[in-house]
Amino acid sequence: MSDLKQELARVERLVNEKMDALLPIEIEGRVGENRLARAMRYSALSGGKRIRPFILLQSANLFGVSESCSLMAAAAIEFVHCFSLIHDDLPALDDDDERRGQPSLHKKFDEATAILAGDALLAFAFEVLSHDTTHVDASIRLELVASFSKAIGANGMVGGQMIDILSEERDLNIEQITRLQRLKTGQLFQASCEAGAILGRATKNARNALRGYANNLGLVFQITDDLLDATIERNEDGTPRKNKSEEKGTYVAVLGVEKAKQQATILTAQAKEYLNVFGRCQSGDMLCDLADMVLNRTK
Amino acid sequence: MSDLKQELARVERLVNEKMDALLPIEIEGRVGENRLARAMRYSALSGGKRIRPFILLQSANLFGVSESCSLMAAAAIEFVHCFSLIHDDLPALDDDDERRGQPSLHKKFDEATAILAGDALLAFAFEVLSHDTTHVDASIRLELVASFSKAIGANGMVGGQMIDILSEERDLNIEQITRLQRLKTGQLFQASCEAGAILGRATKNARNALRGYANNLGLVFQITDDLLDATIERNEDGTPRKNKSEEKGTYVAVLGVEKAKQQATILTAQAKEYLNVFGRCQSGDMLCDLADMVLNRTK
Repeated sequence: MSDLKQELARVERLVNEKMDALLPIEIEGRVGENRLARAMRYSALSGGKRIRPFILLQSANLFGVSESCSLMAAAAIEFVHCFSLIHDDLPALDDDDERRGQPSLHKKFDEATAILAGDALLAFAFEVLSHDTTHVDASIRLELVASFSKAIGANGMVGGQMIDILSEERDLNIEQITRLQRLKTGQLFQASCEAGAILGRATKNARNALRGYANNLGLVFQITDDLLDATIERNEDGTPRKNKSEEKGTYVAVLGVEKAKQQATILTAQAKEYLNVFGRCQSGDMLCDLADMVLNRTK
Repeated sequence: MSDLKQELARVERLVNEKMDALLPIEIEGRVGENRLARAMRYSALSGGKRIRPFILLQSANLFGVSESCSLMAAAAIEFVHCFSLIHDDLPALDDDDERRGQPSLHKKFDEATAILAGDALLAFAFEVLSHDTTHVDASIRLELVASFSKAIGANGMVGGQMIDILSEERDLNIEQITRLQRLKTGQLFQASCEAGAILGRATKNARNALRGYANNLGLVFQITDDLLDATIERNEDGTPRKNKSEEKGTYVAVLGVEKAKQQATILTAQAKEYLNVFGRCQSGDMLCDLADMVLNRTK
């Protein structure tokens, strides 16, 4: 196993443990809160690559931030991601019955519980950020709150999801699709890397470099996701894969498969170039290797 | 018009202006974000008593906090309240077609937009709190984030909403209904008063007194709301009022009208008693008069 794969697996385990330790537990007699706790845990602890926590930890690591501290922010960004998946899956949005091979939350529980559990996870992310174990300095924790909340809102991830919904009814041009993806995926990637920089009190230069890297990485992540949807028709277990290749709001739909691949290659090179500010980006550097892995992924 | 009514009207105007100034505006060419901005504005600026901002401002006023500062936090708590109304109205939850005499957001736009606009308003509240005009001291702003996020989450307002949904299927006893209302209404009332105390760097004693007041006020607010639903059958314009008197999760359903009225009277007296820490609670004190107004309201 490569160093990157080992590190990904290690971080995944650590993040899962931290999320598990943070999430609310059931308390006898509290019917409503317990149902929410079960729903939050079902969604948040049901797998996932934990790629946002990974880039947060690796970014923080560049500035010598202790892992015990960056793990809190890493858990928080993943709670935000989980909230977005729960709401995206709802019948009124993407209407997905499955998530990570399991029933999506509104299928496992019901729509009301899914809406409320998503809301609770979003609020919980801010509760985690404001905890003093996230950073000893309150002004650093507040910077995280400011960065996360902007990345989530109407001009961030949620705005991207709104464009995505509208794209089902109208054709988007390449600029609009880029904006869609920059908001929907890129903003949370950016907030993840920026959180590492904030925790490490990084220079503006370093922070901007990480934002640039994350933004490009997010776009590559999205393009390769679309490419997998467009080119793979069956899952590994032989079951038919949901075909999203005809969705309008994707690079593949507008550029076609070949040009989308070229675009992903260019964006990956640009992503790695941003990292040069930390010394030449090379094999063995986790964020550098991650960009290559995202470009070349087959699942 | 009484002093209280004048002050309520003045604060309502100020809060509306602040919310209007803060909310995102439309920018040419941004279809998704513009739809969200319109939806957020439709819900947030469509009336409402602004009672949470009012008690926040009055609490802050006890400690000499400038209004320009407390108005930011007041707008933030109202954005949280608006988010909760939007999601509560959804078909999967309370399924209300109307809100404040207008079509509810999912009726005016659609369900997807309503879910996303609610999410965006929740994130926006934290963005507003983290802005440096909310308070010069970052640690104070972070305390607001901590207080708000706890009040919203699984053991706060959202938890209360979950109990409320479950109460449709099972009978709750009086303890469970009290907990439901303390979470669903009381937590945000508490966070409002506590925000005033946080902004004013109040003593623990003063903070606890305001929390106690707010908690009781929230319960009275809920009981009188239930009483109005149970006793008034028609709106002022003669249209039939939605009858909620048969809902299970209310004081009126369990105690009956008379005992619920008695309970509201006792809770109001207790609420006013908490205020004695700031000098004898008497007519002319805004928070004191507000408690009486909530108890005796006829709409």
